[in-house]
Amino acid sequence: MFRLCKLSYSTVTTALKRFKIKDVVNGEAVSQNGWIQGWVQSIRKHKNFMFVDIVDGTSLNPLQVVLPSHMFNSQLQNGAAVSANGTFVETDLNVNKIEMVCEEIQVVGPCDPETYPFLKHTPHDMQHLRSYPHLRMRRTSMINAFKLRNQLEMLFHEFFQNEGFTHVHTPIITLSDCEGAGELFSIKSDTSTNTDMENSENHFFNKPAYLTVSGQMHLEACAMSLGSVYTLSPVFRAEHGISRKHLSEFRMLEVEVAFTQDLHEILDLIEDSIKFCIERVQSVPLKKFDDGYKDIPPQHHKAVKNATCSNYVRIPYSEALEILQKNSHKLTTAAPVWGDDFNTDQESFLVKHFGLTPVFIINFPKVAKPFYMYANNDNNTVAAVDLIFPFCGEICGGSLREHRLELLQDSLRTSGLNEKDYEWYLDLRRFGSAPHGGYGLGFDRLVHFLLGTRNIKDAVPFPRTPHSCPL
Amino acid sequence: MFRLCKLSYSTVTTALKRFKIKDVVNGEAVSQNGWIQGWVQSIRKHKNFMFVDIVDGTSLNPLQVVLPSHMFNSQLQNGAAVSANGTFVETDLNVNKIEMVCEEIQVVGPCDPETYPFLKHTPHDMQHLRSYPHLRMRRTSMINAFKLRNQLEMLFHEFFQNEGFTHVHTPIITLSDCEGAGELFSIKSDTSTNTDMENSENHFFNKPAYLTVSGQMHLEACAMSLGSVYTLSPVFRAEHGISRKHLSEFRMLEVEVAFTQDLHEILDLIEDSIKFCIERVQSVPLKKFDDGYKDIPPQHHKAVKNATCSNYVRIPYSEALEILQKNSHKLTTAAPVWGDDFNTDQESFLVKHFGLTPVFIINFPKVAKPFYMYANNDNNTVAAVDLIFPFCGEICGGSLREHRLELLQDSLRTSGLNEKDYEWYLDLRRFGSAPHGGYGLGFDRLVHFLLGTRNIKDAVPFPRTPHSCPL
Repeated sequence: MFRLCKLSYSTVTTALKRFKIKDVVNGEAVSQNGWIQGWVQSIRKHKNFMFVDIVDGTSLNPLQVVLPSHMFNSQLQNGAAVSANGTFVETDLNVNKIEMVCEEIQVVGPCDPETYPFLKHTPHDMQHLRSYPHLRMRRTSMINAFKLRNQLEMLFHEFFQNEGFTHVHTPIITLSDCEGAGELFSIKSDTSTNTDMENSENHFFNKPAYLTVSGQMHLEACAMSLGSVYTLSPVFRAEHGISRKHLSEFRMLEVEVAFTQDLHEILDLIEDSIKFCIERVQSVPLKKFDDGYKDIPPQHHKAVKNATCSNYVRIPYSEALEILQKNSHKLTTAAPVWGDDFNTDQESFLVKHFGLTPVFIINFPKVAKPFYMYANNDNNTVAAVDLIFPFCGEICGGSLREHRLELLQDSLRTSGLNEKDYEWYLDLRRFGSAPHGGYGLGFDRLVHFLLGTRNIKDAVPFPRTPHSCPL
Repeated sequence: MFRLCKLSYSTVTTALKRFKIKDVVNGEAVSQNGWIQGWVQSIRKHKNFMFVDIVDGTSLNPLQVVLPSHMFNSQLQNGAAVSANGTFVETDLNVNKIEMVCEEIQVVGPCDPETYPFLKHTPHDMQHLRSYPHLRMRRTSMINAFKLRNQLEMLFHEFFQNEGFTHVHTPIITLSDCEGAGELFSIKSDTSTNTDMENSENHFFNKPAYLTVSGQMHLEACAMSLGSVYTLSPVFRAEHGISRKHLSEFRMLEVEVAFTQDLHEILDLIEDSIKFCIERVQSVPLKKFDDGYKDIPPQHHKAVKNATCSNYVRIPYSEALEILQKNSHKLTTAAPVWGDDFNTDQESFLVKHFGLTPVFIINFPKVAKPFYMYANNDNNTVAAVDLIFPFCGEICGGSLREHRLELLQDSLRTSGLNEKDYEWYLDLRRFGSAPHGGYGLGFDRLVHFLLGTRNIKDAVPFPRTPHSCPL
């Protein structure tokens, strides 16, 4: 189909076939002549010959290229872009069982070892890498993180498409603060008049507009027609606190299902989709990475295994509260009382209490949750769920949505919100309202959990956090 | 795997199996008892019985439910959410060849025909639908548009994943104006101090930050490690002009390939990927839609066929210029001179000139294009490409990127840009620079083209345009 690799252009030679390293290490090129292009990952010199490891982004395992010492030149350095041609041969001497006996190597783009910020053979800590956001993706640790993100995203699509869901693009620019937490970024056009923002014509969209904190309400509108919908979209929170688990811009997988009125169906969907994906991720042994993986918690593998194979714990808020109150002496903060949302330490305690298995907490006090959640019959709790994961905390939150018009109107009033701002949302209940529910899953948090890195910034290509947006 | 449809909860009965309409019309439920849930699309009353068409978002074809007249109640109206159980039987009387003989039907969410903005059986024009952005997706025309978007997106993923590309999440919040056109939205946190924006601490990110106009430069950083990368991400343009082809927020498919130095490889990739996707889209005959499709240009089918099966025209800018100059008497605007970018009318003329086949224009004058494009040997043109489609105009733009450090620095200076702002981008050429190229394709434009709608707003779930961001 796509002719890129079949064309005969070359910087080295036009007569030879070009291979991707992925295909070479898969054995496709054995005993053939051909050429590859990529970046030098390491060089090991011996008396009469040298080994040059080359990566091209298609495989985590580099290709070992063997060349006679006289072919060395001073530009052949770690990080340089090269073209090499030669013969692919089988060998017992490296992990790939294939190497190239090189006939010609050419440096396409040199890399000065004096100014390149990453030293040969030296593991760097993650913080050092973060100070070079445009270059750090050249380290194997980061290539692994980005490949994992890609795999995980495609697996989520596979799961939801197989189940008949429609992927919808919810808007980034919006007028509403879905969560009501007020942690909004507002936007304006630089060509607007700034002086009189009270005048609607001075706003690009005639009204103040914001970056979305959640696509949920728009997704609900779509679910009332497409039935089952999801989106994997950027969302934004202007929280000032800095933690190793928070980003100002992150990707959230949001899901909405019409005609469901049992919260456990939502729990099943969350659990099944996560297990489907993480079972299939081609995990790479972490010890192979070059950077900063000494931070990985020793129980990381157990936690990942539990998230894959165990039944997730399901407990009501009231029961979780009781556990925390009974164990208050083991908590670093005061035990919560009815109505409190649990903090990081308390969540972490619960997960450990259940042996590092993910924990669903359901049926939260109405006062602890946003207005749109379905009121349970007890008149005190809502059909909400938080999913707590080891190490990364809350990874997912959802609920049945209040689909009964009058109850939703009551809830808006009780929450002190202006009904007029939600007229369109109330329309979804005025016309063909169906019981429905959904959730949002922090995509970056799940990558962060699977990688076992200490900071979520190392799970994301270009992290944005308060006071930090380097490029 | 996912247990949602297998659980035995029901509003009607717990003993019966629940079916999706997609599976019913596929024949999976024939001769079985079961129940379905969805929304009433139309009702046709006869003397002793009535036909109720029900949709649930899983199939464009509704399920015909037959019930005796006595089961009619006043809540059974167009748009109502219902649960129905009965027997699925074969029939020759409708397109699906399957209908339900209904035993019980229950209105879950009524829909008052007096206040519901869409009339039964009446086609509405697209503009009327647009005034109800939260409800219009209940019309078959919109369901079709959203299903098409979903299909097209999954097909692009399939194509690029098969070719070994990695999907990368480029950032939405950024400091740089990649295209240099200055059509930026700036963002601020509402909790920041607004009075003194000169002071860096008053900015949430310490510096003025913007919504991205293109992920290209970040994608280039990733390509220098992962080789072949792409992203399907929201981008933003604060252009004030309103046209039927422009949105303030849109999705762009952006692609970047390392180790390519022939522009025709980029053209191949664009053409192959578009053809792969649109060949496989399960197109639905447009005449079946309920709304506003009288606007579809008569030659729409020919244009879609050409985009699928013909070889796209490839001509240099100089040749396109000559054609336009020779035919200046047929143009509504003055003929362009060397250095001009072509306007909509001129692009449209070229496409018609070549029989409604997509046209690649390559090798533009350097002065007409941004600084980062690869300078050709003639010292006058750059290795750039625009792809022009019938009806929707420019759908795609790309280039080889200038990978030679000195030439890129020269180009920055000539463009009057500050080299300091691009230090990180120049680093990509300082360390292991590889020849590379890429492009951006307007995803919404392609949906718009395939649908044949007059306005791009009808190809997008929640369109944002100047002065318009209704929810």
